[in-house]
Amino acid sequence: MAGSTDVRYDIKDIGLAEAGRRRIAWAAREMPVLGLIRESFERDRPLEGVRIVACVHVTTETANLAYTLRAGGAEAAICASNPLSTQDDVAAALAADGFRVYAIKGEDNETYYRHIHQALDLRPHIVIDDGADVVTTIHRDRRELIPEMYGSTEETTTGVIRLRAMERDGVLAFPVIAVNDADTKHFFDNRYGTGQSTLDGIIRATNILLAGKTVVVAGYGWCGKGIAMRARGMGAKVIVTEVDPIRALEAVMDGYRVMPMVDAAPEGDIFITATGNINVIDRQHFEAMKDGAILANAGHFNAEINLTMLDDIAVEGREVLRPYVEEYRLSGGKRIIVLGEGRLINLVAAEGHPASVMDMSFANQALSAAYLVREAGRLEKRVYQVPEEIDVEVARLKLKAMGIAIDQLTPQQEEYLRSWQSGT
Amino acid sequence: MAGSTDVRYDIKDIGLAEAGRRRIAWAAREMPVLGLIRESFERDRPLEGVRIVACVHVTTETANLAYTLRAGGAEAAICASNPLSTQDDVAAALAADGFRVYAIKGEDNETYYRHIHQALDLRPHIVIDDGADVVTTIHRDRRELIPEMYGSTEETTTGVIRLRAMERDGVLAFPVIAVNDADTKHFFDNRYGTGQSTLDGIIRATNILLAGKTVVVAGYGWCGKGIAMRARGMGAKVIVTEVDPIRALEAVMDGYRVMPMVDAAPEGDIFITATGNINVIDRQHFEAMKDGAILANAGHFNAEINLTMLDDIAVEGREVLRPYVEEYRLSGGKRIIVLGEGRLINLVAAEGHPASVMDMSFANQALSAAYLVREAGRLEKRVYQVPEEIDVEVARLKLKAMGIAIDQLTPQQEEYLRSWQSGT
Amino acid sequence: MAGSTDVRYDIKDIGLAEAGRRRIAWAAREMPVLGLIRESFERDRPLEGVRIVACVHVTTETANLAYTLRAGGAEAAICASNPLSTQDDVAAALAADGFRVYAIKGEDNETYYRHIHQALDLRPHIVIDDGADVVTTIHRDRRELIPEMYGSTEETTTGVIRLRAMERDGVLAFPVIAVNDADTKHFFDNRYGTGQSTLDGIIRATNILLAGKTVVVAGYGWCGKGIAMRARGMGAKVIVTEVDPIRALEAVMDGYRVMPMVDAAPEGDIFITATGNINVIDRQHFEAMKDGAILANAGHFNAEINLTMLDDIAVEGREVLRPYVEEYRLSGGKRIIVLGEGRLINLVAAEGHPASVMDMSFANQALSAAYLVREAGRLEKRVYQVPEEIDVEVARLKLKAMGIAIDQLTPQQEEYLRSWQSGT
Amino acid sequence: MAGSTDVRYDIKDIGLAEAGRRRIAWAAREMPVLGLIRESFERDRPLEGVRIVACVHVTTETANLAYTLRAGGAEAAICASNPLSTQDDVAAALAADGFRVYAIKGEDNETYYRHIHQALDLRPHIVIDDGADVVTTIHRDRRELIPEMYGSTEETTTGVIRLRAMERDGVLAFPVIAVNDADTKHFFDNRYGTGQSTLDGIIRATNILLAGKTVVVAGYGWCGKGIAMRARGMGAKVIVTEVDPIRALEAVMDGYRVMPMVDAAPEGDIFITATGNINVIDRQHFEAMKDGAILANAGHFNAEINLTMLDDIAVEGREVLRPYVEEYRLSGGKRIIVLGEGRLINLVAAEGHPASVMDMSFANQALSAAYLVREAGRLEKRVYQVPEEIDVEVARLKLKAMGIAIDQLTPQQEEYLRSWQSGT
Repeated sequence: MAGSTDVRYDIKDIGLAEAGRRRIAWAAREMPVLGLIRESFERDRPLEGVRIVACVHVTTETANLAYTLRAGGAEAAICASNPLSTQDDVAAALAADGFRVYAIKGEDNETYYRHIHQALDLRPHIVIDDGADVVTTIHRDRRELIPEMYGSTEETTTGVIRLRAMERDGVLAFPVIAVNDADTKHFFDNRYGTGQSTLDGIIRATNILLAGKTVVVAGYGWCGKGIAMRARGMGAKVIVTEVDPIRALEAVMDGYRVMPMVDAAPEGDIFITATGNINVIDRQHFEAMKDGAILANAGHFNAEINLTMLDDIAVEGREVLRPYVEEYRLSGGKRIIVLGEGRLINLVAAEGHPASVMDMSFANQALSAAYLVREAGRLEKRVYQVPEEIDVEVARLKLKAMGIAIDQLTPQQEEYLRSWQSGT
Repeated sequence: MAGSTDVRYDIKDIGLAEAGRRRIAWAAREMPVLGLIRESFERDRPLEGVRIVACVHVTTETANLAYTLRAGGAEAAICASNPLSTQDDVAAALAADGFRVYAIKGEDNETYYRHIHQALDLRPHIVIDDGADVVTTIHRDRRELIPEMYGSTEETTTGVIRLRAMERDGVLAFPVIAVNDADTKHFFDNRYGTGQSTLDGIIRATNILLAGKTVVVAGYGWCGKGIAMRARGMGAKVIVTEVDPIRALEAVMDGYRVMPMVDAAPEGDIFITATGNINVIDRQHFEAMKDGAILANAGHFNAEINLTMLDDIAVEGREVLRPYVEEYRLSGGKRIIVLGEGRLINLVAAEGHPASVMDMSFANQALSAAYLVREAGRLEKRVYQVPEEIDVEVARLKLKAMGIAIDQLTPQQEEYLRSWQSGT
Repeated sequence: MAGSTDVRYDIKDIGLAEAGRRRIAWAAREMPVLGLIRESFERDRPLEGVRIVACVHVTTETANLAYTLRAGGAEAAICASNPLSTQDDVAAALAADGFRVYAIKGEDNETYYRHIHQALDLRPHIVIDDGADVVTTIHRDRRELIPEMYGSTEETTTGVIRLRAMERDGVLAFPVIAVNDADTKHFFDNRYGTGQSTLDGIIRATNILLAGKTVVVAGYGWCGKGIAMRARGMGAKVIVTEVDPIRALEAVMDGYRVMPMVDAAPEGDIFITATGNINVIDRQHFEAMKDGAILANAGHFNAEINLTMLDDIAVEGREVLRPYVEEYRLSGGKRIIVLGEGRLINLVAAEGHPASVMDMSFANQALSAAYLVREAGRLEKRVYQVPEEIDVEVARLKLKAMGIAIDQLTPQQEEYLRSWQSGT
Repeated sequence: MAGSTDVRYDIKDIGLAEAGRRRIAWAAREMPVLGLIRESFERDRPLEGVRIVACVHVTTETANLAYTLRAGGAEAAICASNPLSTQDDVAAALAADGFRVYAIKGEDNETYYRHIHQALDLRPHIVIDDGADVVTTIHRDRRELIPEMYGSTEETTTGVIRLRAMERDGVLAFPVIAVNDADTKHFFDNRYGTGQSTLDGIIRATNILLAGKTVVVAGYGWCGKGIAMRARGMGAKVIVTEVDPIRALEAVMDGYRVMPMVDAAPEGDIFITATGNINVIDRQHFEAMKDGAILANAGHFNAEINLTMLDDIAVEGREVLRPYVEEYRLSGGKRIIVLGEGRLINLVAAEGHPASVMDMSFANQALSAAYLVREAGRLEKRVYQVPEEIDVEVARLKLKAMGIAIDQLTPQQEEYLRSWQSGT
């Protein structure tokens, strides 16, 4: 990999740029917070001379993040955080506008990692990562880059879990901001964004009616909560599976049925994984499912459904209806439908998170990048929370953009909250 | 129009047939009731020698209806009930399989009516209508067909309103079955089908996040109820507008805000019409809206939003983002987005009702067609309800197909329901 | 029974009148529609000289109806429509204010029927009935009253079923207005009123947390719909049982699990019947239930749960916690809790329908009574719908009282709805 | 206060003991987790010889906690944490069973504090506090008790805020376990318990129909979330007010309208405060409200509604309907209804949290008390979280008691979660 040459971009078709630009502009309407930050970045140039590698889903929303980083003075290279999620017209628009871009929808695994390396050839001060693939690549194969780095930011739950494991193992080589853990990120992006867009992906892939169907949601973290909430909102009967007793109990109290996956398997019409773990749907579950069961994944990696196993036990697998809808026929004739090869269904079959959700995630990203620059050299090699003032600022800007006013504490109320003398 | 020649089909591209067949087969999975009826039709041939014109949205679901009618012995001609809703691959599959098909997505108004006339050249015994355009065409221009007709069936609320007006005026020339009014049709199709697919269409067109948005639903009939329920299920704040006090009150009690459209206009982010009436969104509403308001229609005709007026008062209109997303700029700079030219958004931007909903509508259509044949000559020139036994049969078959058992009345309970002597 | 003497009232304690008056005044705040009608009745005196027997739940709301009837010029006698639902303070207030009142909470069956006869001694022109007990009593035992009667009105689904059976059998002796069937009655009272107050009764009786519990609702008519909707709204997992395929399917599409009672029995924590039928929960269900299952009834008669059978198979029955909470211990040790002796739980353990719901029911009652007077002699011995103009008037007054404005059809829109020429 | 004599109890009427015992036994059915802990305490006696003062709402649920503490070997004294929330029959049962009990429903402020002092005369090792009144009393007036204390536990959000302020000010004299912050406490008790029981209290006080009403919820913490969720579940239109931008945004995304209280005031029918702050509803809000607006508080202290101000600006205040329903008439004639004197409405007008919720809170309390004993001398003078293993244990026991199984991580999955090498 070391021999990757310096090409400015590797994309599908530069001719798609105009279509990409139009869609990027549309998304910008729904990203007013990022727009406000972009304006302030243009004034203050907090990223002047900073080199940033952003390994993200290459969509209209991340394009707006890229323009914001540039407005702050940064030079940016962009690669895909998922082989299937790239919007080729967006990649084209970014390339045409002078960004380094390495992303082609449907690229194979080798190309995927080559693209990461090509992006890293920028020698970044900051990495914006989405699943920790770039950070782990640096730690494993590109350690020469470490000395120049201020740090990285991480967009996903999965990535944060991996980075904390690295921190625990004492191998983390630079500071990381867990953007995923910002309230204005995970409360909104994981719950509302994933909730809507996961169902959107499933409906676009299958055109199935959700009302009256039994939807099994594996995992009741923020993503799972969002998916379950929206599936119920569309009239489905929802079953939740969990391994954590507290989350399981929360699902029960929220009115869902909770049971082990092996019991849910024969009841479900649609299964959606959102656990951040592997083989959540495995052989014994496939074997217990109904004919025609539909499987999709909303978690970061395509490891939640054990497709290798499914392939092994199936007598036939073929595309039905449209790309990314595949039917596995088991011996005995039962059919299982897998959507999007078990990859993030909202990116494969729909358009990923709606812009207004990514607006907040990426506002956190932009402000966290500026924070890494500002604090360069003062942070330890740890996983940090997003500073609370950034989190609150993002929420405040979002409310402002929506035209929503809220109450302010009176001086008397602030005083009350500080004091401890008052009683019954 | 009288001179329409006998062509077997007028479609976009016969080469799309294979793709169409594959999608039709996919839809068949979700249409088990129609499948069971098709099996019984193959045995009993209740439509032997009957000529049927079906003026419907040409989709995978109606294709399954067509195959069912043929299984019953009918010869069928198919034309589009909406210029924008035809799925060209389905039209191709039907044509390739020997049906007369006259439908091209995006056809102009003249072609639309020419296609109706070409279909009518089959000299139908039965018309399956969707909006009453064929029935009114026969009454106006093709009265020579009337003597041979057993009757027609009508799929939509809008059509039934028109047909009842004709009955009231004493001009209806043959019996009509109001399939729309079957419980298993309008309870399900209008509410659950329209509810999901309308939002699906809006999301596909705009990729907007519904959570936190204010959605204004005009009309609280079955369609409006479904849309409001699903919009709330996706996290939107819903406002309902109505003209009927009882429905308005029902919306209030269901937890929605209810107000005149002129008051809702400045609050709404998204407006969806489902009233069956004209100019429900008109000049004074456009003028009161927020910049960037999005308008879509879920009612049968594209007359609910007064687009002529909008065109008049706009200084510019242009496509943004993708086809069927048009932005009108008013003097003063405010922008209003209209989706799908004000036509049925679920058909224009999504795939129409999911198959499992149409399964019940079309089961009613197939059984009603057989009923018209069976009762030929015995019915008056009136608008009839679907016979209750058909309605119940459709529900029973659907539950069976879903694997759901229900209770049966005991003899003692039946006796109780019949008696009136028992008391406190 | 013939020998019932003319006493002006038979109630618990006239000393409770002041407390009753205060609660009646409180209820009046939530009954603005009845208030508006009362004002118009005072002006127009449409019931001048009319004698009315109202057999109703004697609550603060029916008291407001009584005052409204009197404002219209009527003389009224009031008896209880259920032995357990009388609010003794309200009965006292009415008696103290000069009404004939025959109602004592907890009266036995003999007293219950004696009270009906005492009320009938008024020789009514009109009967306002609630479950058809008075009308059937007249037909069986007091036929001498028939010649003077203008007709009756009926408040409940159960009563209407009984009256239609009488009509079908050709024995109905005077016209009946099915007030229950008014949209502004059953849409609201049965659904929203029963929904909230049934859960209210269960919570007051048991103080149980509904979140996470499995609630089995027997019957998916308007009452069952309301109960299921509110149980879900409180976080319960809801199972619906039905005998009607169309309603069963509707419950499925609304996101509920549907199954036969015998399958629901082992899953339920709480069972609520709302079918209008008998023995909906019977021996095989008791035997399949979990230890500690709680049973309540929301239907009109206490016959939905087969308590005779439960008594037979139980080895012990005793009050636990508080009156109306009874525990049956089956052989083997399993305990089943029955609330309110299987009578209407919202009346036994809570306060019945909230006033704002009864406002609409009783507005229909008052206007229907005036209609019976106006049309005296012109109606047949049939069960009539509430005239649509009354229904719409009630809704319009209610919206007005809530301060909610709605749209009006423009002349152009009215014209459009009348015409049938316009098309695609 | 120093002169408080050693009386074993000060309660309303010891004759109520039997009624109390019966209700305590009923609550025990819904408290299986505490029951399981009680069994283990009887075996292990982890509180042998420990003196505990529990300042709690004296209800059937806390009685079960008291019996559990005693089963563990503790001697306990109980006083009320709120002057209005004591259930006198429960106090009687506890006293009859040998506990020291100082609590009378409706006691005045002086008695309230005298009762705290009487309880403290036990010289506790551990204080179970609810609002921090006992802990602050010890710090202010009973410092002689400090040397013997192992620490205290705190049940409420409000109390934790006060204790953290004390910690911050460096005045906290012993370790505190913030039981409130346990996931199995605040997720469930604050959200599901407060949600249901607050509405229950309002309905019992007013018998008002929630469907169609506008409910204003002040504060979107866990309590506010629960109240808003349940109010919507009952058909209300919900408006949320907040001072925190992140919570405000969450409320927006959950589909609620969010605005300053001064804008919500003229829209609301019912106002519920749950902020932990003072004067959240104040003069300018009273003045903007509709005639007949209803106000209730769900927060710990009765300071959220500025009743002093309301009293000042009212021309008349009087009880209407029943105790704890008070009407203030403003000049101009507008009436404002205040429920429960602005105290916790679920305790004043209903029965507090349902037992099944308190089951988890009190399981945390019992296990935290044992933890304080076990760790005596090893903890700092700080506010501690409940140890995670206690939290998870409580959830696990609860699921077990509900008969709900969940998935277990496979060894392979545990390995995966620990590793950071795997990627896309």
